[in-house]
Amino acid sequence: MRIDVKQCAQILAQQDNILILTHAHPDGDTLGCGFALCRALLKLGKICYVVNADEIPKKYDYLYEDIAPIKFKQDYVVAVDVATENLLGELEGKYHIDMCIDHHSTNTEYADNLLLEDVPAACQIVFEVIKALGAEMDDKIANCLYTGLTTDTGCFRYASTTADTYRAAAQLIEFGADNGKINRVMFETKTKTYARLERLALDSMRFYENERVAIITITQEMYQLTGSNEQETEAIAPLTRQIEGVEIGITIREKADGTCKASIRTFERVNAAVLAKNFGGGGHNQAAACRFDCSVKEARERLVEKCGELLNDGNNLC
Amino acid sequence: MRIDVKQCAQILAQQDNILILTHAHPDGDTLGCGFALCRALLKLGKICYVVNADEIPKKYDYLYEDIAPIKFKQDYVVAVDVATENLLGELEGKYHIDMCIDHHSTNTEYADNLLLEDVPAACQIVFEVIKALGAEMDDKIANCLYTGLTTDTGCFRYASTTADTYRAAAQLIEFGADNGKINRVMFETKTKTYARLERLALDSMRFYENERVAIITITQEMYQLTGSNEQETEAIAPLTRQIEGVEIGITIREKADGTCKASIRTFERVNAAVLAKNFGGGGHNQAAACRFDCSVKEARERLVEKCGELLNDGNNLC
Repeated sequence: MRIDVKQCAQILAQQDNILILTHAHPDGDTLGCGFALCRALLKLGKICYVVNADEIPKKYDYLYEDIAPIKFKQDYVVAVDVATENLLGELEGKYHIDMCIDHHSTNTEYADNLLLEDVPAACQIVFEVIKALGAEMDDKIANCLYTGLTTDTGCFRYASTTADTYRAAAQLIEFGADNGKINRVMFETKTKTYARLERLALDSMRFYENERVAIITITQEMYQLTGSNEQETEAIAPLTRQIEGVEIGITIREKADGTCKASIRTFERVNAAVLAKNFGGGGHNQAAACRFDCSVKEARERLVEKCGELLNDGNNLC
Repeated sequence: MRIDVKQCAQILAQQDNILILTHAHPDGDTLGCGFALCRALLKLGKICYVVNADEIPKKYDYLYEDIAPIKFKQDYVVAVDVATENLLGELEGKYHIDMCIDHHSTNTEYADNLLLEDVPAACQIVFEVIKALGAEMDDKIANCLYTGLTTDTGCFRYASTTADTYRAAAQLIEFGADNGKINRVMFETKTKTYARLERLALDSMRFYENERVAIITITQEMYQLTGSNEQETEAIAPLTRQIEGVEIGITIREKADGTCKASIRTFERVNAAVLAKNFGGGGHNQAAACRFDCSVKEARERLVEKCGELLNDGNNLC
């Protein structure tokens, strides 16, 4: 069943012993949603906590470090920013999920669903829910919600960012969100190991098809040389697309088992999902991915060939 | 004389034949101010144009390409985002400046002055002036003003960004500002020559004082190798400070005449201006600069020595 913000708040107001689930490999938006909603429900006298399948990266400590973990038997389960149940990772199937609050167009409607697809961060929806619940805002809730807004919009950079997103950010700053510090942690801090990996990755960048295609390759050896790991490669993929004139940017990562994964980023007219589909992958218009059971070198050759076809065939464009 | 937004608008409403000056080496904020104000004054039937000392980088074409340049004898001159007269470059002394609209604390009050130091972008002030003038907003004025807001706040990232800045951005998007495209041009596009220079710059990065100091050196040879130039080095300086644990990040650029310039970026407790002052330079708490009449290598040695003293002496901190 689809529900709106008001219905969502009414249902939550009637519940107690509420368990909130975030998606696996948690990011700023799912965690911001989870802990903001948890804080609001705790203020309303509910028993409530947030669980997720994976370890929370240390940079998100401030979202929850003052909340005492509690064990309780849940009566109601809410998933936040979780498009499909398998994104719960190891928690999949462990709970009956009653409600979902989300903004992904790929959402599979697996529970009572507050789904707003045009909103660039789920935290923007949770902010409206908290207002409708009548919970008193404070700087900690504001920090949680601002974290989701800024991380899911690339610091208010992406085209999906709306006037309402900026207005929500303004309100959250007035409620005490420490925007300068949060943005510094999220966008201005590279670990030394990542900085080393980034240098090797940039060194590996090669251009094809009259420099309209840029490909970075990351090998297992690079992780060993830099002390970095696969988790840190997330920030590498966008670097390929930033070069002037590049229409397709690809980052190929070698996995520990010798297979590899390609992250494809495109710009405007080129459809990334069409390219990925050639290799059994998929995704969005401007960001997609696929896997290869071959070496990085072979994967690169196969991708370059398809890029050439794609760029020369107007039918594959967005 | 200090004036407020209302007085500023009242004065402008009474004038005609208005010349607007931006600072030399024009950036998004000074150009955004200039062309937004020009567009608003043209709408009010005034004769008006914007001049500045240097070539405008191509990426700012959209700010003014539809405005026909006109020659006229100015009756009134307004400088926007120009803290001191010498920042006008070759235009310094060429005009009597009647009014200044600015946000720099270093402003020398050289004209009737609408100065709001706590506002992170001068475009935010000009937006208020345009509202007070009663000029009808449109998407082109909105694009100009949004450009200043986003470029002077690092895409709404810096701690100086206030709730009012976000709220102004929301309004500008509603007036038609193409936020996605502007941010892509300003923050997601690297020229090939810059990308090459950035790689060499990162390769040159060395750490000192238990990795609390990071120094990048850029030589004339690097410009020759990459096809880049000094103008493109602006984006390099922040890279030093992004590494986890680094408290002082310095970029030393070799000039064509063999002297060099150091850009200093610091984080929280370290005062960049104090460090720069040791070498006859100056600036702000977190960003400062100084010049050296010696080689890059010698400048680096002298800076490292002072960094060591500064980090070990609590009196020099912010």
